[in-house]
Amino acid sequence: MDIVLHELCAGDKARRFSPHCWKVRMALAHKGLAYETRPTPFTRIKEIGGGFSHTVPVIDDGGKLVRDSFDIALYLEDAYPDRPSLFGGEGGRATARFVESWALAAVHPPLLALIVKDIHDRLAAPDQAYFRASREKRLGLRLEEIQAGREGRLDAFRATLAPLRLMLGKQPFVGGEAPLFADYVAFGPLQWARVISPFAVLADDDPVAEWFGRCLDLYDGLGRGMPAAA
Amino acid sequence: MDIVLHELCAGDKARRFSPHCWKVRMALAHKGLAYETRPTPFTRIKEIGGGFSHTVPVIDDGGKLVRDSFDIALYLEDAYPDRPSLFGGEGGRATARFVESWALAAVHPPLLALIVKDIHDRLAAPDQAYFRASREKRLGLRLEEIQAGREGRLDAFRATLAPLRLMLGKQPFVGGEAPLFADYVAFGPLQWARVISPFAVLADDDPVAEWFGRCLDLYDGLGRGMPAAA
Repeated sequence: MDIVLHELCAGDKARRFSPHCWKVRMALAHKGLAYETRPTPFTRIKEIGGGFSHTVPVIDDGGKLVRDSFDIALYLEDAYPDRPSLFGGEGGRATARFVESWALAAVHPPLLALIVKDIHDRLAAPDQAYFRASREKRLGLRLEEIQAGREGRLDAFRATLAPLRLMLGKQPFVGGEAPLFADYVAFGPLQWARVISPFAVLADDDPVAEWFGRCLDLYDGLGRGMPAAA
Repeated sequence: MDIVLHELCAGDKARRFSPHCWKVRMALAHKGLAYETRPTPFTRIKEIGGGFSHTVPVIDDGGKLVRDSFDIALYLEDAYPDRPSLFGGEGGRATARFVESWALAAVHPPLLALIVKDIHDRLAAPDQAYFRASREKRLGLRLEEIQAGREGRLDAFRATLAPLRLMLGKQPFVGGEAPLFADYVAFGPLQWARVISPFAVLADDDPVAEWFGRCLDLYDGLGRGMPAAA
């Protein structure tokens, strides 16, 4: 039985934009595991497994529910040890947590501020109300105010990617010669922006953009198969 | 024969402050390898091995010279595979390069600007002249101007450590339950500041300070044995 991936969707249910769900999509493909996705609007996440989680992704692997993208990667690594490793050993498993923390602490917040209104605009109406209320409460400003002036913040955002850019002078992936889950935790937020917002957050000649292109090409173009927002 | 570590020294030759040399000290201790250090002022690095490197650390392992802290760690890992691993496997080896890149790109530059005049003041006179000329050329300001107003930049510096801080909510070391070389690449710059500058860059109640304290305690207090700058 295929693994079921419950993942976030936009008003257009085919548009899957969650950075955290993309990490899991890439992890499932990396492991070569068959899966089906279930599009889930924000306001229906609570229905998954009778209230199992307040966030997606959630996977259902033959009745076993697992939530949280990193925990799902750990689960897949342990449940399918004969498939290609997501971490490349114990050191890679531990150090991937640092890469995740970097992405969450340094990349997600400024990136959200570049695209938050664009996210809102592509959600279905009930999700728009939820998204606006929850994000405006968390961030203390209206979505329009948060996103305003984003062109002026673009250089600062690109500067936050300096660690990845510097590393790419040494090796083509965070995982070395080939990608690991640590790549997907950095890929996730950039794919989020690509799928939900027409605002170009990377310069074409940035080594980070070249790495992102390599990630989009993985697994028969899994990432590239999701159309960019127009 | 013990490994020889050529490392940077201050005017007081016992004061070893280089972040990159500290990474190697910790790596040698991690591997349980006997070593002797050779204090080297900036202006005498060129004498090591007849001009082998323009930077330290340099190690001499029975006549084999290796330079660059990361390359030294890779060398030690491969040359002493039966000793405790510095990387915890191939995934850890690759991902450590990301942690190094984060430290170099996000931590070192703002930290240098907090302590650059303090570094200068603790060097021997010939090194002071070299250090001032080279750093002022690189940074485009006088050392006094770079360091001025550092109290106002402290919060921003501490914010750059957010990825490490977030990760520490999950695990006590970058390496997981125990340290790996990835910890030492983040430890290095903080030890640099501790040994060369009286300016307190970490708040005592910061989880990063607690992790730094754990690193100082490793290997019978190797890091703590180097007195903090008064």
